[in-house]
Amino acid sequence: MKWCRFQTGQRVAHGLIEEDTVTEVTGGPFDSDTRTSTTVPLSSVKLLVPVIPPTFYAAGVNYRAHVTEMARRRGEKPEFPPRADVGYRANNALVATDEPIVIPKDATEQVQYEGELVVVIGKRGKRIAEAEALDYVFGYTIGNDVSERTWQRGDRTFWRGKNTDTFKPMGPWIVTGLDPDDLRVTIRLNGKAMFSYAVKDAIFGVRQFISRMSQYLTLYPGDVLWMGTDGATENLKDGDVVEVEIPGIGVLRNPVVRER
Amino acid sequence: MKWCRFQTGQRVAHGLIEEDTVTEVTGGPFDSDTRTSTTVPLSSVKLLVPVIPPTFYAAGVNYRAHVTEMARRRGEKPEFPPRADVGYRANNALVATDEPIVIPKDATEQVQYEGELVVVIGKRGKRIAEAEALDYVFGYTIGNDVSERTWQRGDRTFWRGKNTDTFKPMGPWIVTGLDPDDLRVTIRLNGKAMFSYAVKDAIFGVRQFISRMSQYLTLYPGDVLWMGTDGATENLKDGDVVEVEIPGIGVLRNPVVRER
Repeated sequence: MKWCRFQTGQRVAHGLIEEDTVTEVTGGPFDSDTRTSTTVPLSSVKLLVPVIPPTFYAAGVNYRAHVTEMARRRGEKPEFPPRADVGYRANNALVATDEPIVIPKDATEQVQYEGELVVVIGKRGKRIAEAEALDYVFGYTIGNDVSERTWQRGDRTFWRGKNTDTFKPMGPWIVTGLDPDDLRVTIRLNGKAMFSYAVKDAIFGVRQFISRMSQYLTLYPGDVLWMGTDGATENLKDGDVVEVEIPGIGVLRNPVVRER
Repeated sequence: MKWCRFQTGQRVAHGLIEEDTVTEVTGGPFDSDTRTSTTVPLSSVKLLVPVIPPTFYAAGVNYRAHVTEMARRRGEKPEFPPRADVGYRANNALVATDEPIVIPKDATEQVQYEGELVVVIGKRGKRIAEAEALDYVFGYTIGNDVSERTWQRGDRTFWRGKNTDTFKPMGPWIVTGLDPDDLRVTIRLNGKAMFSYAVKDAIFGVRQFISRMSQYLTLYPGDVLWMGTDGATENLKDGDVVEVEIPGIGVLRNPVVRER
């Protein structure tokens, strides 16, 4: 199933997408939901961020080629994470597909994409075994972990390097029933494929993160876990269009605007 | 005004506290709220975490005596933050007043309190000047930024060092109309005063954080900003009771339990 959050006029609702039609649903994907008789063409709605997470988790560095290439550019030795220590991102930065990534005036040119899989938690859980971890997943969507590299390196936290408003595109919708080991991520800049990788090449996979996190943290419905990106990442500039595609889910597409 | 979130039976509602009585309110403190005719004695309700923040901000190290003392214990030179770079905490870890802080089995004995002021944002804002910053504050509550020091130092992020379930007591309620420069924080362990400090001795104050954060981030109603603690912090052990008092707000009191 394909779940979205959408707006028509002033109304905001959850919906199920079948082919080119959205069926409005009362309640949400994590509550007791009921299909209504209201349907609208997908092309007529504004898609919103598909879920506003109670807690917004991010694996951070989690793919070898990304760690290696980013360390090489800084003239450093690559350091792989020894454990699945999860990080965080912030809700203020979320935008939906088609919404612009806005680069602040005082950012350097080093504002870069990071295309990645997003895991959406579906039920409350603690101390989850790896073998049961995928039972706690509601579905999957796509994220672009946009990063200003000088702020990421120079600030004490990732507050503006990663969490400047609009730096966290997520969408276009959530798809259920997928096996994360089958998924591939492709990042395109202005229509050109920049990098493509298999989700399962992660240093720590979805099962490992869910199991380790949940030894200390209760996971709640709607929490999201961004799985990290692989490969080199390149600068985004005014007028660019960045797309992250995961076949089986869809395409997260965002134009880039630099403030003047 | 004194705003709380509370539970009676299965009902969860917002309320206004006047003396020993809670008046139930429909809507919330950030919406259009209306007093109902339902009142209950304060002593009969279970107080809940007074707000579930969309984004949970924390100043982190923000007081000189705390930085100096913690660095001395580690045998390091104190390093004061050069800028008001905000950090984050996570909603899974929130508990209300009177709820236990649960220390996991595998934590060391270095699980410590950090009593601090919590700022609750009341209206949406971006690029806020310092002179207008307090206009965006709804009110103030109290937080205890419980920390496992070995995980805080050894993990790649603060995920379990700061965000283990129950490590973020917040409450007991939100008080409006206060001047943060007038407030003092006192931390008591088993009834004994451990440390007391003036909120205004912060390296960066409430106005400075709100102004700097909002240059890049939109602040939303219900967002919270924990201001950091001062002084030395001590270990919590099974059976302890830790209290953080801010006269003018109240007392946040939590028992401590170690898992067996």
